[in-house]
Amino acid sequence: MSKIAVLGHGVVGSGTVELFLKNRENINKRNGIDLELGYVLDIRDFEGLSYSDKFTKDINDILNDPEVTVVAEVMGGVNPAFDFVKSCLEKGKSVATSNKELVAKKGAELLKVAKEHNCNFMFEASTGGAIPIIRPMHKCLAGNEITAVAGILNGTTNFILTKMIEENMAFDDALSMAQKLGYAEKDPTADIEGHDACRKICILSSLAYGRHVYPDWVHCEGITKLTLEDVAYAQNWGGEIKLIGSVKKCDDGKILPMVRPAFVCSGNQLSHVDDVFNAIMVYGDGFDQAMFYGRGAGKLPTASAVLGDIIDCAKLTETSKSQYWEDSADDSFIMNYLDDQVQMYVRVDNVSDADINAEFGQVEYLDRDNKPANEKAFITSKLSEREIQTKLEKFGKNVLAFIRVLDF
Amino acid sequence: MSKIAVLGHGVVGSGTVELFLKNRENINKRNGIDLELGYVLDIRDFEGLSYSDKFTKDINDILNDPEVTVVAEVMGGVNPAFDFVKSCLEKGKSVATSNKELVAKKGAELLKVAKEHNCNFMFEASTGGAIPIIRPMHKCLAGNEITAVAGILNGTTNFILTKMIEENMAFDDALSMAQKLGYAEKDPTADIEGHDACRKICILSSLAYGRHVYPDWVHCEGITKLTLEDVAYAQNWGGEIKLIGSVKKCDDGKILPMVRPAFVCSGNQLSHVDDVFNAIMVYGDGFDQAMFYGRGAGKLPTASAVLGDIIDCAKLTETSKSQYWEDSADDSFIMNYLDDQVQMYVRVDNVSDADINAEFGQVEYLDRDNKPANEKAFITSKLSEREIQTKLEKFGKNVLAFIRVLDF
Repeated sequence: MSKIAVLGHGVVGSGTVELFLKNRENINKRNGIDLELGYVLDIRDFEGLSYSDKFTKDINDILNDPEVTVVAEVMGGVNPAFDFVKSCLEKGKSVATSNKELVAKKGAELLKVAKEHNCNFMFEASTGGAIPIIRPMHKCLAGNEITAVAGILNGTTNFILTKMIEENMAFDDALSMAQKLGYAEKDPTADIEGHDACRKICILSSLAYGRHVYPDWVHCEGITKLTLEDVAYAQNWGGEIKLIGSVKKCDDGKILPMVRPAFVCSGNQLSHVDDVFNAIMVYGDGFDQAMFYGRGAGKLPTASAVLGDIIDCAKLTETSKSQYWEDSADDSFIMNYLDDQVQMYVRVDNVSDADINAEFGQVEYLDRDNKPANEKAFITSKLSEREIQTKLEKFGKNVLAFIRVLDF
Repeated sequence: MSKIAVLGHGVVGSGTVELFLKNRENINKRNGIDLELGYVLDIRDFEGLSYSDKFTKDINDILNDPEVTVVAEVMGGVNPAFDFVKSCLEKGKSVATSNKELVAKKGAELLKVAKEHNCNFMFEASTGGAIPIIRPMHKCLAGNEITAVAGILNGTTNFILTKMIEENMAFDDALSMAQKLGYAEKDPTADIEGHDACRKICILSSLAYGRHVYPDWVHCEGITKLTLEDVAYAQNWGGEIKLIGSVKKCDDGKILPMVRPAFVCSGNQLSHVDDVFNAIMVYGDGFDQAMFYGRGAGKLPTASAVLGDIIDCAKLTETSKSQYWEDSADDSFIMNYLDDQVQMYVRVDNVSDADINAEFGQVEYLDRDNKPANEKAFITSKLSEREIQTKLEKFGKNVLAFIRVLDF
């Protein structure tokens, strides 16, 4: 028999306990293990639960109990989660976390501590919520070189975009609705500015390419500037606007991680992913492309991913070698996004065809219902983004919007 | 150092060797292993390859070499694959296979042999080709009860259906095109009658519910009776016709595995899966739903899945407990599909509204372009299939088509 401890009894923590207790018998039987709930750490009191006797306010109860072999960290935030996780790993207790901020900022360090103490630091729940993506990437797809990853990694923004696309709802109204439904926080900055998606693409980039990618190194744009006009032009073009977190391997061996709204063509499965759902498309030399779709957040979905890791941790007798990356001293392996070759959607006001052609040559013009005569929208040919930005500067304030076209 | 052996140098076998040799250095480094190609078994000669010196025609060369720890079986068919695989497992050599027929017919037996000899029998490539589905199901989703699985498990039929849907091509023409493009065999029976999808849903059912489900126990219908009229009505209804292999857990603890064309609504991600792509939607109590999408066949895609298993086999020091199922003495745990409650699409000729209403009460009538006056198409309310069939018998030869509506 070994015990699990759950750090934090919030939404995900209580869900993890609930799902574990519901399915414990089958989990133990099917996996040849004997896990039981040992502790739940929370500063609050929770009375009247079937497991109220398991609560503690002192992390040392968990650290000092040799029967605790796996710890679920579902508190969120870097402090005190980092200290707690590190202490557990140093005691040889494996940790499963749903904490994307912790993994994105401290992943390399914690993986190293886990390795030094022959245990595991797992984080399937940190990216894509319930969606199996971390383990499939480093195990099922282990025979491949990963060439790119592109995902809808934030459910809140995908819900807002879906409302804009399907119900012609303005950004502010869709955001209010998301807040009312509990999909968005009162302060929605981390979601709508892309910071949440950024942490997740950092985790996927680090895993795919073996070196820690820190959030500060990633060019990140949110969805706050998107308008219904842009949504309409995207549909005329033959696709949808989605907030995409992506990373790709470049010809010079560098990688380009990035978060930004993008035009996604309808032939790409990501364009069909709506509401709060997440999906991650992975590209590689053998399998070509594979997509993983599901609930990116929520009580039981996130608990499902945490629990999968808990079970795996309980079965492993040593550190998983493939689920590892090294720390990075600097960002010299990250490509500057301005050097990337892209096609750009551009919307302008009072710019002549002649001026557009003078800068961009042949472009693909788009249309929308009720297009004002002085508005033009077009897709450029493929150019370096630096070059495109230089050209757009010449149009000055007449540039109303520009959005990259996802080309993988 | 340990050696891998590849049984069969056909499309998948040569792809497996190609992908392994291309990525070997990184595979070994990232997984902390030291694999090299030991043998390729084939009755044919292959000269002029960089690894021509590795070929053998004698399985004993592989069985008797203690340095061979992992064997890829990519020959197809039950004989002699079964004997070869069993002999390898009995020698403690783990086996990774892409052979769905072997797994569907002999899986329980081979899993038992592997367990008895503390090695592994893996088959990620047998279902969904490159798509990670086996490992995600028994590892990432291990904390859940799987309530249902529904998948597009055969690329050939999905290609044919896509041509019927998108290009209004008749079934026979689409089949000819699939044959010309190499997607369908000269004898396409196994694909178009659903036998291939049936083997795959047997594998997924066995894994999800822990008991071997044999193909003979599964109600299986192919796509040969589908017409462009049905396709048109499905679109009018708000979805697409897809060949679905599915299994669900029923209230009485039995399971219902099945293969049949189905109306899939556009809100279901499976309806957007086109061409030769496969996708599998899994439902469970914690994660709710997750879909896995990718290439279901092909040289390198299938090789990718085989190689992922080879790598995992090389790292494991004992039999994976969660990737296991028991043999089944009989089919008493399988529900009769006639007892299932379903909504049915029905197309009839020369049947009056009064007669339809007399049998089915309120129904949802569908329309299509150029609908003849004497043709009617409708969706029934939810009834047992047995009841629906009894009612349809009263319409006799005036029933032109009936197709189930996928309700999960």
